[in-house]
Amino acid sequence: MPQLYTYFRSSAAYRVRIALALKGVAHEAVPVHLARNGGEQHSAAYRAKNPQGLVPALELNDGTVLTQSLAIIEYLDETQPGPVLLPADAEGRARVRAIAQGIACDIHPINNLRVLQYLGKELGATQEQKDAWYGHWIATGLQGLEAMLASHPSTGRFCHGDTPTLADCCLVPQLFNARRFNCPMDDYPTLLRIDAACAELPAFQQAAPAVQPDAE
Amino acid sequence: MPQLYTYFRSSAAYRVRIALALKGVAHEAVPVHLARNGGEQHSAAYRAKNPQGLVPALELNDGTVLTQSLAIIEYLDETQPGPVLLPADAEGRARVRAIAQGIACDIHPINNLRVLQYLGKELGATQEQKDAWYGHWIATGLQGLEAMLASHPSTGRFCHGDTPTLADCCLVPQLFNARRFNCPMDDYPTLLRIDAACAELPAFQQAAPAVQPDAE
Repeated sequence: MPQLYTYFRSSAAYRVRIALALKGVAHEAVPVHLARNGGEQHSAAYRAKNPQGLVPALELNDGTVLTQSLAIIEYLDETQPGPVLLPADAEGRARVRAIAQGIACDIHPINNLRVLQYLGKELGATQEQKDAWYGHWIATGLQGLEAMLASHPSTGRFCHGDTPTLADCCLVPQLFNARRFNCPMDDYPTLLRIDAACAELPAFQQAAPAVQPDAE
Repeated sequence: MPQLYTYFRSSAAYRVRIALALKGVAHEAVPVHLARNGGEQHSAAYRAKNPQGLVPALELNDGTVLTQSLAIIEYLDETQPGPVLLPADAEGRARVRAIAQGIACDIHPINNLRVLQYLGKELGATQEQKDAWYGHWIATGLQGLEAMLASHPSTGRFCHGDTPTLADCCLVPQLFNARRFNCPMDDYPTLLRIDAACAELPAFQQAAPAVQPDAE
């Protein structure tokens, strides 16, 4: 059975958990605690799996280890039966990937735990300054996404059409994070509407941080 | 003819320029100056093209605007003739995308111009602190990539096999940036070897910042 190296609160792992649930792929969760023991993702044992020292990673039955959440989700979509997570047309795929990357490249990495830790330890940033940093990049990113989605004819019940895609796998964890840090959300009615549609689906419910085996 | 909204020094635009050149796609370069006029990417005219206010964007002949460098490159690969930029097998594609995302998600966004500007303006970081920040994320990211590539049987003359892929389109601009900020490079022999192989190809030469029409 494939093994998912995951942390309940990791936004990138959360994306892959949604995709695995949407596809109905049986797997075993292997928790990697990002804060305990100086960060278990830095251990030699885990780096032997993923030299980047980041979660998630998906170890296949033959021992192949896949890394990077978006790459893992596209692999699952290409190899597993179940609902498709990318559109059939090249232009639609480009749009879904652009929405996903607008989150996975331009919001999430800047607000990741390791970056917030650096701000505090190396630059002496206060909690207030770290919260302002977090809120700034959330607002910058979500404003762009709201504008991309609000007026586009391909936006449907979900980010692209009326079934969930890779884009929704990224959007829901990012909004979860934004709420966790008490970011104002009133300016993103389209994103909130899509998030609510996702929340009705069992796959998104099963992937939520609070119901993971390693949740605290 | 497609129009590429670009800035000579933008790492993400540089990736797309390489892919366009590898594919031999005729296009017009439309410079967007990221530092002049408070950042031309923030103008209402440009945001009407790309609501995220980031370069690059590729406007197709029918007016469709594609955004996010990796999504644009995959679109080009799916729709244009010429050498393929992603492997034929799902596992190979997952590896190439993971390498690309290890750069495009986990190195580049944290060191982007807008982040360095925030560090200076909002957190009062000195030039020395900004340089240390830059070097830290370069070293963290490139160490992981070197480990991913050095020992993997699929690494060839290029990141994956003996022809350039999406991964090389990302690697070369990131190493260009690292050199520009005087980051030590001795620990990355595999990355440097691949970079040198890329530098021999006309497509990579044509895409370099120094030979762009808007180069300063």
